[in-house]
Amino acid sequence: MLNVEIYITLKKTVSDPQGLTIKHALESLGYQNLQEVRVGKLVTITLNSEDKKKAKQKINEMCRKLLANLIIEDYSFRIKEV
Amino acid sequence: MLNVEIYITLKKTVSDPQGLTIKHALESLGYQNLQEVRVGKLVTITLNSEDKKKAKQKINEMCRKLLANLIIEDYSFRIKEV
Repeated sequence: MLNVEIYITLKKTVSDPQGLTIKHALESLGYQNLQEVRVGKLVTITLNSEDKKKAKQKINEMCRKLLANLIIEDYSFRIKEV
Repeated sequence: MLNVEIYITLKKTVSDPQGLTIKHALESLGYQNLQEVRVGKLVTITLNSEDKKKAKQKINEMCRKLLANLIIEDYSFRIKEV
């Protein structure tokens, strides 16, 4: 089986009010030195497959078709055998 | 500066309807071989600091106090120098 971790993040140029709210909350708890906080999604997919190369292609397709909104989001992923 | 990627996931025993919905959607798009799909959060924090050890401790605190709900969620993180 393959374990795929997909990281979906807002593009750098897109403002992230959720991240900003978390930043303010952390600062109000006394954490300084925060340059930036941004929030994204983590989608973990377990595949019944052993073929990493094919999986890579399928995951790219899934991200483009369904998981990420490429107008405002970027994605990357890591594939591990389990 | 340090770049911290925090991965917040639902505990294995907690059901994940959002993940299940994505799994069904992917299956209806023709993707078979999906064992499981789970959704989590990705919080990226950029710290104005160079001290990895201290950062590790602070990030653990932030996760416990604010970012993760340890009753139903687990967290892990990676720290990179940027």
